[in-house]
Amino acid sequence: MNLIFATHNLNKYKEVKAQMPAGIALGYLGDLTQDPPVAETAETLKGNAELKMWALSKGFGLNCFADDTGLEVTSLDGAPGVYSARYAGPQATDADNIQKLLVALEENGNRNAQFRTVIALYWDGEVHFFEGVCRGTILEAPRGHQGFGYDPVFLPEGHTQTFAEMNLGQKAHISHRGIAIKKLIEWLSKRNSF
Amino acid sequence: MNLIFATHNLNKYKEVKAQMPAGIALGYLGDLTQDPPVAETAETLKGNAELKMWALSKGFGLNCFADDTGLEVTSLDGAPGVYSARYAGPQATDADNIQKLLVALEENGNRNAQFRTVIALYWDGEVHFFEGVCRGTILEAPRGHQGFGYDPVFLPEGHTQTFAEMNLGQKAHISHRGIAIKKLIEWLSKRNSF
Repeated sequence: MNLIFATHNLNKYKEVKAQMPAGIALGYLGDLTQDPPVAETAETLKGNAELKMWALSKGFGLNCFADDTGLEVTSLDGAPGVYSARYAGPQATDADNIQKLLVALEENGNRNAQFRTVIALYWDGEVHFFEGVCRGTILEAPRGHQGFGYDPVFLPEGHTQTFAEMNLGQKAHISHRGIAIKKLIEWLSKRNSF
Repeated sequence: MNLIFATHNLNKYKEVKAQMPAGIALGYLGDLTQDPPVAETAETLKGNAELKMWALSKGFGLNCFADDTGLEVTSLDGAPGVYSARYAGPQATDADNIQKLLVALEENGNRNAQFRTVIALYWDGEVHFFEGVCRGTILEAPRGHQGFGYDPVFLPEGHTQTFAEMNLGQKAHISHRGIAIKKLIEWLSKRNSF
């Protein structure tokens, strides 16, 4: 059985862990507090989503999900893709990443791109994946201050506002992550009453 | 139903939370990563243990337990008690706390004390408490480098080693926390096969 000791104190955890019978899998808050929860070492969005999902579900038997999201730019052969959050380096800010992207697309006629989210869900022992895609173009300068990541330079197809100019509800309605989450909720609603 | 989003990213969490139907209680890793997990504002060990336990069980539906432990010194009317970890101030180290205790007991003939642990367990919707007490005396100077907290100055009754001179197994066999954990395991073993 899974049981969590609600402490950050490693000394307490070690003492108690030493006493636990083999059948009790003891976790503690230190296991959950890594940021990010696991090293994102996979080479695909799906792989990284699954890594993050397992970190919680394996150790704690928790029903949980994780997402991994990438911006895939056509003329950059799908870059930054799985490296979107660290495109300009491991400590890169959103502004750094956007700047690098705009430079890479200078003098480039094709500014087509898509955001793609893969969600890995662990539910009562089963693993399921859900994908959401949102196509659009990369603007030449940022617009708007909502959202995060590349939102200020991403203009979704058929819309006149960037993701950073939309509120949460507007963005969720059409976004990659919003679409993936809708599929997740639909799956859950078929299997459970909530 | 409880579902955890395995992310530290508050922006992602806010987006997804906004989409969730009312029946899905969504948590995220940020809720778990406070240190300590909750403010320990209760005036009893039992109260603090329960506060820490609820922080995990309420938000996440997790089976978990939390402990709170205090050193209760007879001639100090039970101090430092519930304030043991912050006896010498909110940022106090173990050494600071021990130093303050030794000064408080200078020229004091009665050095009797007890360690007391209260564990609050949340298990499948039920809440249970388990207590462990270990009586002993406060030495005039620290001895040993194992354990933590006041262990180097606590000599348990009937023993010649301080807690800080014992290994994990020896300490767990007689300690306040070890006794409380034994009761917890016994309770779990009666209700579950593990």
